Amino acid sequence: MDAIFTANNVWMMICTALVFFMHTGFAFLEIGLTRQKNTINILFKNIFIITVGLLLYYIGGFNLMYPGFAEGSAGIIDFAGFGISAPENGMTPEYADGGYTWWTDFLFQGMFAATAATIVSGAVAERMKIGPFMIFTIIYVGLVYPIAGSWKWGGGFLDQMGFYDFAGSTLVHSVGGWAALVAVWLLGSRIGKFDKNGKPRAIPGHSIPLATAGVLILWLGWFGFNGGSVLSADPELTSLTLVTTCLAAAAGGVVAALVSFLKYKNLDLTMFLNGILGGLVGITAGADVMTPESAIIIGAIAGTLIVFAVAFVDAIKLDDPVGAIAVHLICGIWGTLAVGIFSTNPEHTFLIQLTGVACYAAFCLVTSFIIIFTLKKVVGIRVSEKEELEGLDVHEHGMDAYPDFRLNEH
Amino acid sequence: MDAIFTANNVWMMICTALVFFMHTGFAFLEIGLTRQKNTINILFKNIFIITVGLLLYYIGGFNLMYPGFAEGSAGIIDFAGFGISAPENGMTPEYADGGYTWWTDFLFQGMFAATAATIVSGAVAERMKIGPFMIFTIIYVGLVYPIAGSWKWGGGFLDQMGFYDFAGSTLVHSVGGWAALVAVWLLGSRIGKFDKNGKPRAIPGHSIPLATAGVLILWLGWFGFNGGSVLSADPELTSLTLVTTCLAAAAGGVVAALVSFLKYKNLDLTMFLNGILGGLVGITAGADVMTPESAIIIGAIAGTLIVFAVAFVDAIKLDDPVGAIAVHLICGIWGTLAVGIFSTNPEHTFLIQLTGVACYAAFCLVTSFIIIFTLKKVVGIRVSEKEELEGLDVHEHGMDAYPDFRLNEH
Amino acid sequence: MDAIFTANNVWMMICTALVFFMHTGFAFLEIGLTRQKNTINILFKNIFIITVGLLLYYIGGFNLMYPGFAEGSAGIIDFAGFGISAPENGMTPEYADGGYTWWTDFLFQGMFAATAATIVSGAVAERMKIGPFMIFTIIYVGLVYPIAGSWKWGGGFLDQMGFYDFAGSTLVHSVGGWAALVAVWLLGSRIGKFDKNGKPRAIPGHSIPLATAGVLILWLGWFGFNGGSVLSADPELTSLTLVTTCLAAAAGGVVAALVSFLKYKNLDLTMFLNGILGGLVGITAGADVMTPESAIIIGAIAGTLIVFAVAFVDAIKLDDPVGAIAVHLICGIWGTLAVGIFSTNPEHTFLIQLTGVACYAAFCLVTSFIIIFTLKKVVGIRVSEKEELEGLDVHEHGMDAYPDFRLNEH
Repeated sequence: MDAIFTANNVWMMICTALVFFMHTGFAFLEIGLTRQKNTINILFKNIFIITVGLLLYYIGGFNLMYPGFAEGSAGIIDFAGFGISAPENGMTPEYADGGYTWWTDFLFQGMFAATAATIVSGAVAERMKIGPFMIFTIIYVGLVYPIAGSWKWGGGFLDQMGFYDFAGSTLVHSVGGWAALVAVWLLGSRIGKFDKNGKPRAIPGHSIPLATAGVLILWLGWFGFNGGSVLSADPELTSLTLVTTCLAAAAGGVVAALVSFLKYKNLDLTMFLNGILGGLVGITAGADVMTPESAIIIGAIAGTLIVFAVAFVDAIKLDDPVGAIAVHLICGIWGTLAVGIFSTNPEHTFLIQLTGVACYAAFCLVTSFIIIFTLKKVVGIRVSEKEELEGLDVHEHGMDAYPDFRLNEH
Repeated sequence: MDAIFTANNVWMMICTALVFFMHTGFAFLEIGLTRQKNTINILFKNIFIITVGLLLYYIGGFNLMYPGFAEGSAGIIDFAGFGISAPENGMTPEYADGGYTWWTDFLFQGMFAATAATIVSGAVAERMKIGPFMIFTIIYVGLVYPIAGSWKWGGGFLDQMGFYDFAGSTLVHSVGGWAALVAVWLLGSRIGKFDKNGKPRAIPGHSIPLATAGVLILWLGWFGFNGGSVLSADPELTSLTLVTTCLAAAAGGVVAALVSFLKYKNLDLTMFLNGILGGLVGITAGADVMTPESAIIIGAIAGTLIVFAVAFVDAIKLDDPVGAIAVHLICGIWGTLAVGIFSTNPEHTFLIQLTGVACYAAFCLVTSFIIIFTLKKVVGIRVSEKEELEGLDVHEHGMDAYPDFRLNEH
Repeated sequence: MDAIFTANNVWMMICTALVFFMHTGFAFLEIGLTRQKNTINILFKNIFIITVGLLLYYIGGFNLMYPGFAEGSAGIIDFAGFGISAPENGMTPEYADGGYTWWTDFLFQGMFAATAATIVSGAVAERMKIGPFMIFTIIYVGLVYPIAGSWKWGGGFLDQMGFYDFAGSTLVHSVGGWAALVAVWLLGSRIGKFDKNGKPRAIPGHSIPLATAGVLILWLGWFGFNGGSVLSADPELTSLTLVTTCLAAAAGGVVAALVSFLKYKNLDLTMFLNGILGGLVGITAGADVMTPESAIIIGAIAGTLIVFAVAFVDAIKLDDPVGAIAVHLICGIWGTLAVGIFSTNPEHTFLIQLTGVACYAAFCLVTSFIIIFTLKKVVGIRVSEKEELEGLDVHEHGMDAYPDFRLNEH
């Protein structure tokens, strides 16, 4: 047992490292798909999120997410206290069925916590003030995410109801996605995104190599995100999970590229990339309860959804520079519902999955609206027109991302 | 046994992730060593290869490569059927001596499959039409690579003959390298690569930082490529393999830089980098059967070969923008033959190694010629002069890789 | 036992790979924080260090660092012979308490060896001749680092005295930091770094995205740097180490950003990044003997130190382009002393920690001064003014890092 415990913990620590590395992927993706004049601002936000996110998870997040709901509790909110202190058996195989130590548990979950805010970061890029974004991040990562997480992963009411979300199509991706939706709506679109007739204009990202590397790093990170969500190194479950994850990613990318080619007659690399991400988000809710065939179908549908969702977001005049709503919200919902359709576990039902989606929608829409609307009224959330046109890097950070290069104005 | 099975499978899953990450390395290396105007095209090909490669391996590649040749079969070609379906004991320590689960087996091998086409991608960069390249990739990854692989790793006739290729100096690198040779020959050189007198002109790559990062990522990936080819976490063999791999890489780089300095009086970073890759490719065939001393010698010879091979490819008027022929073909052959010279296993002989090299040469030259020549005659494989001069990004993808940067025309 | 041995060795091999990957992080960080005209020069040095460093460690470094001091030896210097040859039990659980094989031992330690020189590389960037730097590297990595390492990790006199340096705040980071201090002092500042009145001028780095990615990759690498320094996969110690490492990094970054904001009224991304590195260096000496609370305090103090140390280095007219002295030397000293304050092991005392710091200071200052001063007198260490102004890439390597981009002169 000790040897399996050691091997399990090794796997979980590696998965933790891989999920940490996803923040590099997010950073590359977000800056790659936006303009160079806002690069430092985006990087600052990413670095802020991962560092502050970990500290918040230490201060209270972990104990808010895993409060150990009492028998008979409503399972909506509880809190096990500030700071972290290991249970007596926390470093032994008695803890968590020997899947990992309590330290690993904290760190693995802590790496997840920051992700929700990162999703929002991309959506609000190029026009949101850094101060309000930092306040939003602190509240959303410190309170909203862990409370929401406790409902399922912390053993709360949705867990008791039989809702299933293996690695976070809803708990992570939609939680971020709903807030992204609210934020871009309250923020308004970037100057120049829609012309006088409301027609969307593409604002090309400034570094497609970094965006591509970002997606590949995110895919790599998903080995840990999904593979670690087995919560042990169980050979069958972990390896099945990696297979379904990779096949869904591949199918998502290929189908998005294909649909986009048929729709626009163009071999669109960014659609290919977003299709991969859509496939990954889509498989995340049920990566351990799918056959490879189902994984490919889920990924393919996610890839199709991406193409239409990106167009739809444009059509309703929302400005989401990196496609976060399409990828994380739409595919997050799809993946969660797909568990109700394709799961090999007959206890998973579409209706309960839908209920879970609705609960998270309600909670995240309300909380993120309250936070962002309040910030909008009290301090303002949007930079001035001058700052937006000249770039947030110079105005918010007094720095250029590429001082040695000659740049185009736009 | 269960604990060792778990630890083995953990190692193999990590190696799978590392081999996956090599595609980021290839992407960075290939775009770094070419011009910015073809960046999106190269990235699109890389993303296409990894996604379609995985799906093809799911559809038929895995069962074509590991068909389970019947007793008395000629061991040349067989097929175990479409799709993947695990054997009954596939998730137990009974499978593959407990080295990994059948799911891990599929995914690890699937990650290898795409690599051969990636090698070709670099060689044909900046002038090949994307459509024919995609068709070539599908056939080469879907059929040629798995059939070739079955001869040795699938237990076919070369395996029965005693041919040894631990991790693919021949099965992966030369298989890609032969096709690269055929492709650059049929394609012709880039405009401006040779002047009127046939003298080669250096066309500098547009981002040496990304090229360098690509090589470091590839080296990192080789920890999994070679380390995982042990097919278990056997402590002695895996750790020996990592030592020989790293020492060969180091020796290859240092010697290539030194030889290049003596020959050209220049501290040439790209030669240093290609020397590292040459050392890695060279050690790959026998990484588990070498002493550290032999590994250094193999790497040093690979590093020397690189310098002369790059010059030779230029001299015979082939245009290989990233040095794929020198690295993957020449060093792949060298590494395979080196097993016959340096292996600690006395059953490995030079003659049988040479036979293996010749079989793969014949098969890959013929198949890649048929595919690419047919494509050339039927649809054409080369972009128009206008497209080549203005860049494939704009013409094939309607996008710029770096829209915010002011660029030089060339 | 065999299963635990396998799991241990898997962990240690992964940590080895992660430490290797840190060289990508260092490369990105160093080029990102300097001007584009010196990019290839810096990358060449990084590639030189990792390859030559490994070969030197093979030739003699490993046996100089772990000579197996005889009973009663002074524990200052000894040598077990050239080359590497495994002890009889080197691949069995009898070796190193079953923590890893002897091959893994060699490679893990070899990856550490190169790091010290990398630290110097950043500090002397943009003005040091490549030849003398290579000579310095060979001597420092081949002789100084292993001898210094033998005092503690090789069981020498500081180990016997009870000095503690878990993963190298002193043995790696300060050893590099002292040499960096000597080198920048002997080299002098870059042209334009100080104005006529001696006021420092910021010379902005040319790619903040790569610098940021470098720091994130370094943080990722630290999972292996510290996690592997447990020298087994012991579940409790490895996971505690990762928790303290990440919390110190987070605290270091946040506090550096905050202090810098209070001091300069600016949201300074590079200070945030250097704060993270400072936190990581600071926790490294005692990552396995700290509570999470102590880790946060150590990181926070390191983050504060960074802001003032960077200003202090400027004030005494030393020119350290990447902040290596502040990060690796100052925080390395702080982390080593912090063990004497915060360690959960009562045997660790401030006085002995201070003694260790002083011994390394003396040895490294003297040796690096002798090497660099001799080089300065004999061959010169600084490029000509013309070379410095036009960039080392063109003059030392005959190449441009970004030939397709239009650049600013400065």
